[in-house]
Amino acid sequence: MNEYIDDSYGLHTDLYQINMAEAYWEDNVHTKNAVFELYFRKLPFGNGYAIFAGLERIIEYLRTFHFSESDLDYLKDLGIQEDYVDFLRTVRFTGTVRSVKEGEVVFGNEPLLRIEAPLLEAQLIETALLNIVNYQTLIATKASRIKQVAGDQPVSEFGTRRAHEFDAAIWGTRAAYIGGFSSTSNVRAGKRFGLPVSGTHAHSFVQAYRDEYIAFHKYAKRHKDCVFLVDTYDTLKSGVPTAIKVAKELGNSINFIGIRLDSGDLAYLSKEARKLLDQAGFVDAKIFASNDLDEYTMMNLNAQGAKIDAWGIGTKAITAFDQPALGAVYKMVSIEDDKGQMVDTIKISSSPEKVTTPGLKKVYRVINNHTKKSEGDYITFANEQPGTEAKLHMFHPVHTYIGKFVTNFTLKDLHENIIEHGTLVYQLPRVQDIQSYVQQQLDLLWEEYKRSLYPEEYPVVLSQTCWDNKMKNIEDAQKQNMLLESTY
Amino acid sequence: MNEYIDDSYGLHTDLYQINMAEAYWEDNVHTKNAVFELYFRKLPFGNGYAIFAGLERIIEYLRTFHFSESDLDYLKDLGIQEDYVDFLRTVRFTGTVRSVKEGEVVFGNEPLLRIEAPLLEAQLIETALLNIVNYQTLIATKASRIKQVAGDQPVSEFGTRRAHEFDAAIWGTRAAYIGGFSSTSNVRAGKRFGLPVSGTHAHSFVQAYRDEYIAFHKYAKRHKDCVFLVDTYDTLKSGVPTAIKVAKELGNSINFIGIRLDSGDLAYLSKEARKLLDQAGFVDAKIFASNDLDEYTMMNLNAQGAKIDAWGIGTKAITAFDQPALGAVYKMVSIEDDKGQMVDTIKISSSPEKVTTPGLKKVYRVINNHTKKSEGDYITFANEQPGTEAKLHMFHPVHTYIGKFVTNFTLKDLHENIIEHGTLVYQLPRVQDIQSYVQQQLDLLWEEYKRSLYPEEYPVVLSQTCWDNKMKNIEDAQKQNMLLESTY
Repeated sequence: MNEYIDDSYGLHTDLYQINMAEAYWEDNVHTKNAVFELYFRKLPFGNGYAIFAGLERIIEYLRTFHFSESDLDYLKDLGIQEDYVDFLRTVRFTGTVRSVKEGEVVFGNEPLLRIEAPLLEAQLIETALLNIVNYQTLIATKASRIKQVAGDQPVSEFGTRRAHEFDAAIWGTRAAYIGGFSSTSNVRAGKRFGLPVSGTHAHSFVQAYRDEYIAFHKYAKRHKDCVFLVDTYDTLKSGVPTAIKVAKELGNSINFIGIRLDSGDLAYLSKEARKLLDQAGFVDAKIFASNDLDEYTMMNLNAQGAKIDAWGIGTKAITAFDQPALGAVYKMVSIEDDKGQMVDTIKISSSPEKVTTPGLKKVYRVINNHTKKSEGDYITFANEQPGTEAKLHMFHPVHTYIGKFVTNFTLKDLHENIIEHGTLVYQLPRVQDIQSYVQQQLDLLWEEYKRSLYPEEYPVVLSQTCWDNKMKNIEDAQKQNMLLESTY
Repeated sequence: MNEYIDDSYGLHTDLYQINMAEAYWEDNVHTKNAVFELYFRKLPFGNGYAIFAGLERIIEYLRTFHFSESDLDYLKDLGIQEDYVDFLRTVRFTGTVRSVKEGEVVFGNEPLLRIEAPLLEAQLIETALLNIVNYQTLIATKASRIKQVAGDQPVSEFGTRRAHEFDAAIWGTRAAYIGGFSSTSNVRAGKRFGLPVSGTHAHSFVQAYRDEYIAFHKYAKRHKDCVFLVDTYDTLKSGVPTAIKVAKELGNSINFIGIRLDSGDLAYLSKEARKLLDQAGFVDAKIFASNDLDEYTMMNLNAQGAKIDAWGIGTKAITAFDQPALGAVYKMVSIEDDKGQMVDTIKISSSPEKVTTPGLKKVYRVINNHTKKSEGDYITFANEQPGTEAKLHMFHPVHTYIGKFVTNFTLKDLHENIIEHGTLVYQLPRVQDIQSYVQQQLDLLWEEYKRSLYPEEYPVVLSQTCWDNKMKNIEDAQKQNMLLESTY
């Protein structure tokens, strides 16, 4: 056990990628140019949009991609042939990546990342890319849903203890910040990403002194900004009155920011606590609430007139509790043939939504020049020039008889050049700027797409050329099957 | 952004731990001996038991616990006072840890880990310990549920692409192996933990050749063991017949292990594929199935007579999809008072299940010498001698009138000494031995505790002394509140 050092992410992939790459290498097709697209089919949480996240981590991964000597030793010990393993020593990522920005508002069935690379490289990186995007996009989206309910009230992320291991805690809290959260409790994430950190004390602090009055005083002795946790013994009979007493005694020597409620009926307790604070003259003291909250409980508490000023969100956001997986996939859409020409590839399925759309594509956001709102997203081949058309025909990619013509529009290309032939050509934005970008992009959407429950479906459509080509590919693949059917 | 290097796990904690520790240090109580217990209240997935996992990672974390220079720089830049930050430079984990073994069968409300350490150290490590145990125990338990349905059939974990970031992929797949899975697709996890790895090829491999017949031949040219994925175009019309054709053509030059189905109706397709394979003489060829499977779909497929020999499990296990968080908590149960005596601490809550049980405790499994089955778990103070009693009174800790007397029993102390005053005194087992241990421990449980749905509740009881002491602590804490009530 543990004979090898964990010193690279080269093997952070599925074994079948290594196996396939070996067959490509044996067949000398490993350097053929291949195009893969990364996308999800269905929006999570029944939400009307998603927030893309993960690009920073992907760039870090691709730029350092290699197999370490211990990786190669391990592969040899597994029985993989030496000539191939020795070849793997030379592999780096030399491809080209286009991607939507982190913080982009995105939808189902549109290419979020597009990888053009030698077949072998494009294959080896699949698993890690999905591992990153699926989780980070899920959490940014969940956080955005919660932020929609919180409005201007600050939301703190403090789910580390329930996150799925260490990486989820730090990348998840970064994604939550992108989605609109104000701060994190995770100090390492604060350090690594430059996120604001927040937190005061826990029940154990009161337990250590076995007395709330003493504990609050001890805390205040060292910390000027005080939020007292008031539910260690009894919120209304002990916690809140003690917090008030200590705040009065200490007066201006502390900033009595407020109290935190972490159990019990938050609607009732917050209203009663508000009264006690107001009666004592602490009308500016804030009430922080936490305890398994999410957008649904927050909406309910608000509907009941709860007096909550700031929210602490743990489990439900960092684990995306109500839907803990996004189903993004990574599909080959085009490959170089023996003559050096790029040709389409398709994956057929009896589930219609799983049929892929062949070809190297772009995605545009269609912005109405009059309303300044988005009319939908428009997917074309890379070589189409949709901006030159006077009107766009946007028709539903499944129910093709549903559609509209859009005029007086501006197209925004959602893809940025990130890596060109292995070289980073993109300036990574600060995480604060990513958060602001999310808000700007959400402003482009009609409110109907942003409802928590049963939002209107946002149009993501294929250009006529893309759609026609997809149908032709399906027909061709089916013909090939007919042939086989008659053989057996 | 990114001014600091991410070079330690010292700050992988909540800010409030750093703040509380600062107040302890200021008050010079940071070296007081404190006892914390880590436990969960409620079993996940409605299961009748859980499988503890995470100890190996915890040991690694505690043994290397420290604040790096960049951690200290960051804390100073946050505005935390220099004298305290300089003190943090010296902090290591010097406490004592007792824990149940990895792979132990565990239940709600029993101490899984017990930390005795200087108050400040015990506080700083809380968040990371919960982060580790909550996730790894959740996944080991989920995997065990799935393995119960699979019986002797092998189950492969291949959820990396849906895992919550990198750490979850590798620690989660290790936990799944502990719970009974046979192998992982994640090569890095295989390398790091010595787990068996498995996998053959994906749809993209067929797409790269745009022809199943060519693709299968190309794969077989380099790989002797062949499992062909047959649903890229059409499972029964194309995939299975092509796999058979290639297997016949290649004969003994390959090991035609079987085929994999990854979409469509797995009951129907597996039965039809079985017929085709049998008719072709490949009666030993195995059918592997995957596609969002979990214990419920597996049970349904089996009930419908699906012909599946081996299972590939992704999303539903690695994300614990139906309940993606375990609620383990870390509570102070005892602390050194000003006279150097250890005294009880309690946390009261209006939710009865959230009231803690004070005192330094042990957990025993009560094994009936006659049936060789477990009668339940028995929690005592560390200084009790339950093994010397002729009969044990095991009464329900909430509904105390429900109970039984057990005679002719053997007690197994579930806690091992792991770390003593900062020094590792435990020999870490191999992960294969942990997996075997799980099976042995599950054999001690009556089948009624192991049902997937509505299992019988396994008894976890307090000794009379423990129970009486808890009641006394509740009463004392309530008296204190009464006093406060009369003051305000």
